[in-house]
Amino acid sequence: MNRCFGIADNEFIRGKVPMTKEEVRAIILHRLRLNRNSIVADIGAGTGSLSIEAALLASEGRVYAVEKSSEAIGILKANIDKFGADNIEVIHGEAPEALESLPRLDRVIVGGSSGKIEDIINGAKEKLRPGGRIVVSLITLENLCTAFKVLEGSFESEVSEIIVAKAEKLGKYKSLRARNPVFIVSGEIQ
Amino acid sequence: MNRCFGIADNEFIRGKVPMTKEEVRAIILHRLRLNRNSIVADIGAGTGSLSIEAALLASEGRVYAVEKSSEAIGILKANIDKFGADNIEVIHGEAPEALESLPRLDRVIVGGSSGKIEDIINGAKEKLRPGGRIVVSLITLENLCTAFKVLEGSFESEVSEIIVAKAEKLGKYKSLRARNPVFIVSGEIQ
Amino acid sequence: MNRCFGIADNEFIRGKVPMTKEEVRAIILHRLRLNRNSIVADIGAGTGSLSIEAALLASEGRVYAVEKSSEAIGILKANIDKFGADNIEVIHGEAPEALESLPRLDRVIVGGSSGKIEDIINGAKEKLRPGGRIVVSLITLENLCTAFKVLEGSFESEVSEIIVAKAEKLGKYKSLRARNPVFIVSGEIQ
Amino acid sequence: MNRCFGIADNEFIRGKVPMTKEEVRAIILHRLRLNRNSIVADIGAGTGSLSIEAALLASEGRVYAVEKSSEAIGILKANIDKFGADNIEVIHGEAPEALESLPRLDRVIVGGSSGKIEDIINGAKEKLRPGGRIVVSLITLENLCTAFKVLEGSFESEVSEIIVAKAEKLGKYKSLRARNPVFIVSGEIQ
Repeated sequence: MNRCFGIADNEFIRGKVPMTKEEVRAIILHRLRLNRNSIVADIGAGTGSLSIEAALLASEGRVYAVEKSSEAIGILKANIDKFGADNIEVIHGEAPEALESLPRLDRVIVGGSSGKIEDIINGAKEKLRPGGRIVVSLITLENLCTAFKVLEGSFESEVSEIIVAKAEKLGKYKSLRARNPVFIVSGEIQ
Repeated sequence: MNRCFGIADNEFIRGKVPMTKEEVRAIILHRLRLNRNSIVADIGAGTGSLSIEAALLASEGRVYAVEKSSEAIGILKANIDKFGADNIEVIHGEAPEALESLPRLDRVIVGGSSGKIEDIINGAKEKLRPGGRIVVSLITLENLCTAFKVLEGSFESEVSEIIVAKAEKLGKYKSLRARNPVFIVSGEIQ
Repeated sequence: MNRCFGIADNEFIRGKVPMTKEEVRAIILHRLRLNRNSIVADIGAGTGSLSIEAALLASEGRVYAVEKSSEAIGILKANIDKFGADNIEVIHGEAPEALESLPRLDRVIVGGSSGKIEDIINGAKEKLRPGGRIVVSLITLENLCTAFKVLEGSFESEVSEIIVAKAEKLGKYKSLRARNPVFIVSGEIQ
Repeated sequence: MNRCFGIADNEFIRGKVPMTKEEVRAIILHRLRLNRNSIVADIGAGTGSLSIEAALLASEGRVYAVEKSSEAIGILKANIDKFGADNIEVIHGEAPEALESLPRLDRVIVGGSSGKIEDIINGAKEKLRPGGRIVVSLITLENLCTAFKVLEGSFESEVSEIIVAKAEKLGKYKSLRARNPVFIVSGEIQ
């Protein structure tokens, strides 16, 4: 693919696996501050939309796409094939345990947490090099409150809320349809 | 610079020149669907934040940064130097006239319009190759309504509204501070 | 009913008739600046949620609930009965024509416009007393742009956008679900 | 005053005292589900904007406006005079202690908490009659997370986020200026 950034949501194979929407994906990737050779882990990789866009950017680096669901793993691999992202390694497993087998990391994306957000952030912290960054996206108030507290304590952190509304046809007119708010909590190890 | 994507707002030299904030910049760049060799024009380049991030992505392409204000031109050039973005060419002039001297374009970013949004979109349309894309960011209702109408008529278009709120210190706590809504209207020439 | 303000969405009988949600209803009613004896027209009354709350507030005034759909009229009347709002008069008809038979008005609410937003605003303007107010809620970009232009020209006007997100159960957690943005354009005759 | 609902922000005397803006005030008042004879406490009454609008609605009830700052008390009293809201009693004191001297309550509004949000909610719970309601507005993440947890535990509760943007002049055009997001957490004692 000639594209270097900006894959539309509908270009990914999806099935029923939830996907971080493109506007939020763009912001997460921007907040990562990727280098061409960054070593990245994407926790809860799902369809692989974030892993693939990160791998395209960090073209001389490596992305570990961690996902626990077998169904999602199939779709993730199909998307990796579709976009030829051969610097992605799929890890079928669950964080924080799955982080242990990985090398030292420059960047960690947390998109799914299955109720273990605190352990995952702490596990990521262990694996990150000094100057390393973590970017967590959250949609539940419980996880927001936990991640906010945990990251406040140990990182130079930032919290943003993103609301996106898109115009869609309503009869012959167009109305704005809002997507659900997403909170992005990010931090840099000092 | 080793970075391939994601420059923070406070890394740019700014003066009093208005700047598209990083979350919106991320979404505009994503919506551009850049290729490594894209030829891009950035209308109303201001500080150059969009031009520079686009030039970093389209590293084998070229970015024409069009800006009419002499004050902004100085800051724009200082930022280009700072980030070593040598595939940017600064055009001191005003759209749509300044577009005439440019080669055929793959992508057009419109960030500033000085009341000429309709002419700029039409001028961009003339310069864009088939499959070319335009991404316009708007903050006034008047420009939103004009751009929406003009792009609806001649492009496969999309309209999104982006609202970002960031946590800032309020005493010993953190409160969410909203940035003003930005509308992003984008289209692809068919 | 002992209640003087604040009927929840789920207290209204609804069927499939669209309803202005309670947070937006609260803001529209606030923006109306009602007096106890205000004479009000509610154009596109639908379920009657706005008419009924307005009638409860303007308890010594009168509310004309204008609605063109027979199906909605049935639900509207059922809600009026349920809340005992006997200072509402139901007008089965369509604005702006239906406005002609009404007396001079103090307040006009426009919730539905069926593509006639400009004529309805102009019709309302004819009927309103000096100092009278109109509050229009809009969900399409086309109507926003038209209403904004028409009201700018002839009223002291205000435009607001409202985005509401509500926490809903997501598994054992709660996530914020956004409602679609609503634009409220209001004006006062001078 | 002939008005029964809907006082504009600029009608209140303000000084430097922070004030809940009118759109959020409208939603808080709606969420209170006031009766004409409700007994209400407004904790952190500030300028009195919420107390006065509540007193206007609950015209046969009583509103206790609790405020700890002497400066705010002066402005609060001036506003009560201005709007002739003689069913308001000003309590110079701090919650939760100040709640003790009050009679049983039907409704509690919490607008300011000075770091004691948990104690205030628990204090309010003690004072509220069965079927009583509490509506808390929050702007910090810390208070949101605390109030969410405390109310989840002991009330049938609701959490909403409100974002309002208003059009303001920008040169000869109008741009949308966002107000900061406010979270409203409400609950009913069962």
